[in-house]
Amino acid sequence: MSPEVARLGHVALETPDVEESLSFFSDTVGLEVVERTAETAYLRGVEEYDHHTLSLTAAEESGVDHVGWQTEEPEHVAAFADRLEAEGIDVSWVEEGVEAGQGEAIRFEVPNGHRFELYGEMAKPEPPKERRSKLKNRQYDPTENHPTAPNRIDHLQIWDGDALECAEWIRDVLGFDEQEYYDLEDGSRWGTFLSACGVKIDLAIVQSEHADDDAAVHHVAFEVDGVRDLFEAHNVMNENGVPVDGIGQHGISRGEFMYARDPTSGHRIEFNTGSYLTLDPHWEPVEWEENDISDGDDHQWVGGIDSLERVTY
Amino acid sequence: MSPEVARLGHVALETPDVEESLSFFSDTVGLEVVERTAETAYLRGVEEYDHHTLSLTAAEESGVDHVGWQTEEPEHVAAFADRLEAEGIDVSWVEEGVEAGQGEAIRFEVPNGHRFELYGEMAKPEPPKERRSKLKNRQYDPTENHPTAPNRIDHLQIWDGDALECAEWIRDVLGFDEQEYYDLEDGSRWGTFLSACGVKIDLAIVQSEHADDDAAVHHVAFEVDGVRDLFEAHNVMNENGVPVDGIGQHGISRGEFMYARDPTSGHRIEFNTGSYLTLDPHWEPVEWEENDISDGDDHQWVGGIDSLERVTY
Amino acid sequence: MSPEVARLGHVALETPDVEESLSFFSDTVGLEVVERTAETAYLRGVEEYDHHTLSLTAAEESGVDHVGWQTEEPEHVAAFADRLEAEGIDVSWVEEGVEAGQGEAIRFEVPNGHRFELYGEMAKPEPPKERRSKLKNRQYDPTENHPTAPNRIDHLQIWDGDALECAEWIRDVLGFDEQEYYDLEDGSRWGTFLSACGVKIDLAIVQSEHADDDAAVHHVAFEVDGVRDLFEAHNVMNENGVPVDGIGQHGISRGEFMYARDPTSGHRIEFNTGSYLTLDPHWEPVEWEENDISDGDDHQWVGGIDSLERVTY
Amino acid sequence: MSPEVARLGHVALETPDVEESLSFFSDTVGLEVVERTAETAYLRGVEEYDHHTLSLTAAEESGVDHVGWQTEEPEHVAAFADRLEAEGIDVSWVEEGVEAGQGEAIRFEVPNGHRFELYGEMAKPEPPKERRSKLKNRQYDPTENHPTAPNRIDHLQIWDGDALECAEWIRDVLGFDEQEYYDLEDGSRWGTFLSACGVKIDLAIVQSEHADDDAAVHHVAFEVDGVRDLFEAHNVMNENGVPVDGIGQHGISRGEFMYARDPTSGHRIEFNTGSYLTLDPHWEPVEWEENDISDGDDHQWVGGIDSLERVTY
Repeated sequence: MSPEVARLGHVALETPDVEESLSFFSDTVGLEVVERTAETAYLRGVEEYDHHTLSLTAAEESGVDHVGWQTEEPEHVAAFADRLEAEGIDVSWVEEGVEAGQGEAIRFEVPNGHRFELYGEMAKPEPPKERRSKLKNRQYDPTENHPTAPNRIDHLQIWDGDALECAEWIRDVLGFDEQEYYDLEDGSRWGTFLSACGVKIDLAIVQSEHADDDAAVHHVAFEVDGVRDLFEAHNVMNENGVPVDGIGQHGISRGEFMYARDPTSGHRIEFNTGSYLTLDPHWEPVEWEENDISDGDDHQWVGGIDSLERVTY
Repeated sequence: MSPEVARLGHVALETPDVEESLSFFSDTVGLEVVERTAETAYLRGVEEYDHHTLSLTAAEESGVDHVGWQTEEPEHVAAFADRLEAEGIDVSWVEEGVEAGQGEAIRFEVPNGHRFELYGEMAKPEPPKERRSKLKNRQYDPTENHPTAPNRIDHLQIWDGDALECAEWIRDVLGFDEQEYYDLEDGSRWGTFLSACGVKIDLAIVQSEHADDDAAVHHVAFEVDGVRDLFEAHNVMNENGVPVDGIGQHGISRGEFMYARDPTSGHRIEFNTGSYLTLDPHWEPVEWEENDISDGDDHQWVGGIDSLERVTY
Repeated sequence: MSPEVARLGHVALETPDVEESLSFFSDTVGLEVVERTAETAYLRGVEEYDHHTLSLTAAEESGVDHVGWQTEEPEHVAAFADRLEAEGIDVSWVEEGVEAGQGEAIRFEVPNGHRFELYGEMAKPEPPKERRSKLKNRQYDPTENHPTAPNRIDHLQIWDGDALECAEWIRDVLGFDEQEYYDLEDGSRWGTFLSACGVKIDLAIVQSEHADDDAAVHHVAFEVDGVRDLFEAHNVMNENGVPVDGIGQHGISRGEFMYARDPTSGHRIEFNTGSYLTLDPHWEPVEWEENDISDGDDHQWVGGIDSLERVTY
Repeated sequence: MSPEVARLGHVALETPDVEESLSFFSDTVGLEVVERTAETAYLRGVEEYDHHTLSLTAAEESGVDHVGWQTEEPEHVAAFADRLEAEGIDVSWVEEGVEAGQGEAIRFEVPNGHRFELYGEMAKPEPPKERRSKLKNRQYDPTENHPTAPNRIDHLQIWDGDALECAEWIRDVLGFDEQEYYDLEDGSRWGTFLSACGVKIDLAIVQSEHADDDAAVHHVAFEVDGVRDLFEAHNVMNENGVPVDGIGQHGISRGEFMYARDPTSGHRIEFNTGSYLTLDPHWEPVEWEENDISDGDDHQWVGGIDSLERVTY
C-alpha cells in the first residue's frame, strides 16, 4: 500500500491573545467558530464539513504550531510513519481527541523546520440548528453569514531557506505533485507550487531571503466566491483598522487575491478566488521564468503584495 | 415657479402584523430599521441617508397607505397643492412629524385611486455609531450588513384600470418624464415607465386586467450591487420559506430582477440591478410593441414573473 | 492494476448541418474551433488544453455518436476492455487518429444504450499564435475571446429508462463515485449524480418518463466564471434567436445554470457555474428526497427548466 | 433663462499616431469606432447613443484639444457665450459639423488653461445593422462586443496649478455642483469633485505639484458593469503590453478603478464601476480631510495609483 495525502486539512496558529485573534478571524474575516476549549478556538469556513481548518492557540508569542494534512485513508497515517522513520525523521504520535474532533495523528518536521501533521479522521459537526441550510449540500444558511464569509481553506504558503530542497522532499516523501514552479533569472528556484489533492495548488513553498532564515508561514488562503468579495473584504478590513497587504491577481495559479493580517498575531490570511482546476491526468508542471511576469518585484500579474513579513513556527 | 418632483421617496405599506412583516423586511430582506413607533416601523437601505424609504403600519388588512415623493424644493409642496386644487383634486395637508422624520406634506388621489404624498424635507439620521462607516460617503459599515442588503429604493410598479390615463395625468400634472412605454398588439397601452428623477425609471404603471380593478401596487423595487445578489437573495428567501415570483431580466429598463413576497402581508419586493441611466437631455421615450420581446406572456427578456397578485390601497 | 476513469473528455454530437451547428457552438456559444475535417468540427473551451471536448459530425439526423472519457493512464484502456468483455459487453477498438487528436480507444454500450468511449491520450494543440496568452497557465489571450466564452466542459446529463440500473452499472464497472442522488416520493430513483474525476459531478443520470424510452442526452454543460455570464449568455442567445430553457440554480450540485439549444440540431448546452468541490476523501453521497426542494416540478432550487426534450444516440 | 450644462460629452485627444492610438482605444479597450475622417477618429462606448465621447486627432505631440460638455438645451450655448463674454472670457464659435456629428458650439479657456467646449446637439447614429441589439434600449448586440467593452463615458480628471480657483470658477460660471472635496492637512484644497449632470461626479479637479504647472488631463473614465471587468481589462492590458497604473477603489466617489495608458500617446483611461448616485435634492458636498483615508500617498481607499503623469492641452 502506498499512502497518500488527500488534502490540506488545517493550520494550527499560535497567538498571544486568543480572544483578540478570534475576533479578527471570526467577526472580521467571517470564519465560523465550531468549538472553543480553554486553550484553543477551532474555526472553519461556511462551506466546510470538517471540524476545523484553522485553530488559534494561546502562546507566549505568535507562531505556527503545525500544518495538518488529511490522508486518503486513516491507515495511511501509520504507513507514512513507517516511511518517515525509514527516512530518519522523528515521528511523534498524537492521540485521538488531543486536537478537538481529530483522530490519531503523527507530527514531524519537514526540512527545513516546518512542523507537519498527518491525520486520517476528523469529526463533521453540524452547524447550530438555526444556522443549518435547508439544502442538503450546503452547510450554513446564508441568511446570517458574514457578508464576505470565506467558503473553505484553499492553500498555504510557506517560506524556507532552501525552498527547492524543501519542495523536493515533500514531493518525494509525501507524494505531492508539482503543479507550477518559478525560477529566477540566475536559474535558482523562487517558488514551487505543490498539489496534495491533485486538482489545484495546496502548498506554495517560497525561497527566503537568507539560507538560514527560520521556516515560516507567509499566509493561509481561504476561497471566496468571486472578485467582488475581495473588494468587499478589503472594505471590511479598512473599516476595522486591519493592516492589508494588497489586492490583485497572481500569475501563478491565476487566482485573484486580497491579503490582510490579524492585528494581534500578525498571521496573514489571503482571500482567494478564480484559480483553475487540473483534472488532466497528464498535467505537466507549468514552468515560469522570472521575466515571464513583469508586474514589479513581487512576481504578480495584477497588483501585488510587497510585504515579506511572515510568522515562524 | 414651476414645482418639480425630485424622486421617489418612500412607500407606506399596511400589514396585519407589523412584527412579522418587519422580520421579513429587516431580517430576511436586509433593510435597516431606523425608527419604531407604536404603530409604524420605518426602514431604509444601507446606502440611504433619508429617514425612511419603506414603512410598515398596522392595519386590519394589507394595503398601501400612500406613496411618498420628494419635491425638488420644500416650497414646491405648496405650489403643487395649488396646481392640484386647480385641477379639482382634493388635497389634505399632513403636519411635520406626523410621519416620523418628515416635514409638512400633502396627500391626494391620483386617477384612478393611487394615494400619493408630496413632501420637501426629510431628516437624515446617522446610523448607530457602531454601524457607521469610516468612509464619509458610505452610511453603514458593511461588516455587519445583511449578506444581500439592498442599497436604496429604485422604483415602484402600480397597476391601474386605465393605465394610460393614469400615466398621462402623472406626466402632465406632476411633470414626470416618459422613459419607456409598451403597447400591446391591439394598440392599447400595457405599461408606461416614468421618471421623476430624470435619470432612470421611478414609476411603472401597468394595465390591470379589468377597467374596474382597484388601484394597486405590484411591487417596490430596491437596488442591489449585481446579479450575484439576486441569486443569493433568492437563496435567502428559500431558506426562510418566503414565496418567490421569479428571477430574470426585464427588456424594459434592462434591469435584472428577483421578486419575493412578505409571507404576512403579501407585499412584493423586487431586488433590482443593472438598469441604465439617461443622462441625455434629449432622451426620447423607448417605444416597445408587444412582439418586440418574446419570452412568454409576461413581457420579459430573460425568465419571467407570471404572478398578477398585488395589493390595493 | 485497477483501471480508472480520470474525467469526462468530450461529447461527440451528430447534426444534420455541421456548418449551422458550428455557427451556434462557435459564434454564439463561444467555443473555439480547433480542427475541421471533411465530416467533423472539433471544439474546446478557452481554458482547455486537450484537442476537443465537443465534436460535431454530419448525420442524417441529430444524435449522439458517443461520450468520451479519459482514463487515468493510457494502459487503462486495455484493462477496461478486459473488464468489459468479462462483463459480456461488446468492445470495439478505435485506432489512434480516427478521432482527430486522440490515441487508441474503445467504444461500447452502457446499459441501456449509452455509447461510451474510453481513451488515454489526446493531443494538446496550442492556440493560434496570435491568440495565445502570455500567461504560461492560460490558453487563450482574452482580448479576442467571445464575451461569455465557456472555460471548460463540466458535466453531462443523460436520461435512461432505468436510470438507477444505469447508474449502478457505471458505478460498479467503471468505478465512478456517487456524489449525490435524488429519490421521488414513491421511493424510486429520479437521478444519480456521479463523479469520474472525484472532486465534482461529471455525469447526471436521470429517469426517463417511460421504461422503454431510448437512451438520450439531455445536455452537455460547460463552465463559465460567474452568474453574470449566465445573464449575458442568455442575452446573446436572445439576440441570435436561440431557444432557451431557463436560468436558475440547481439544488443538486448547487450550480447556477442557463440552458440553450442549437436551433439546428436541438442539442442543449448548459452554461454552468458555482458548483462545489469534494476534496473530502470521506465524502458520503448527498441523499435528496423529492420534497427537499420545492421549486415546482423540475426539482430545481431557483428558477427551473421544464423542457424534457433531449437527443437520442 | 439660466443656461445649464447637462453632462460631460466627450474628450478630444491629440496623438502623434492616430492609427496606433485607435488600435489601443478600439481593439484593446473596446470602444466602438463610429466615424473616421482624414484627421480624426470618433469613438463611443457600447451603451452610448451620441456620435462620440472620445476623439483622436493627429498632432505633433500628445495633447488635449478640448473637453466637450453638452448643454441642457441647444439655445443654452449662446446664453453661455453671453455669460462668458460678460466674464471677460474669449469665446470662439465652431460651426455645425466641424466636429463630426455635432451642432454649433463654443470653445473657451477655463482658468488656468483648460479648453472647454459647449454644444447642444449631437447626432445619434445607429450601430451598423449587424451589430444592433434587438432590445430597443440597447445599442450594440453583445455577441460581438469586446469582452470588457466600456459602457459609457463617466468622468474626467484634470490637474491645475490652482485647483481650488479652477473648481470655484467652474462651479460659479458653469453652474456645476460640488459633490465631494478633499483638503490636505495644511488646509489647502487637494481636489474638488464636481457634478454637471447632478447625479454623480463628472469632473475631478486636482492640485498640481507646482502652481505654474500647465493645465493637464490625468485621465478619462469609462464605466464598466462590475469589478470583474477591472481584473479582466487588466489582463487584456497585460496581454497587449499596455502600461497600467493600478487597480483599487477610490474613497472619494467609492468607485472601483483600473488605470491604463495608451502606449502611443500616454493618455490614461480609467475603467470605473460602482460609484453612487445622488438623487437627493439636498445633497451636501462630502468633506474629506487628508487623514480620513489612509491608504498611502495617493488618497485611495483600496490599492492605489501613484503615477502623476498626465497630458497637457
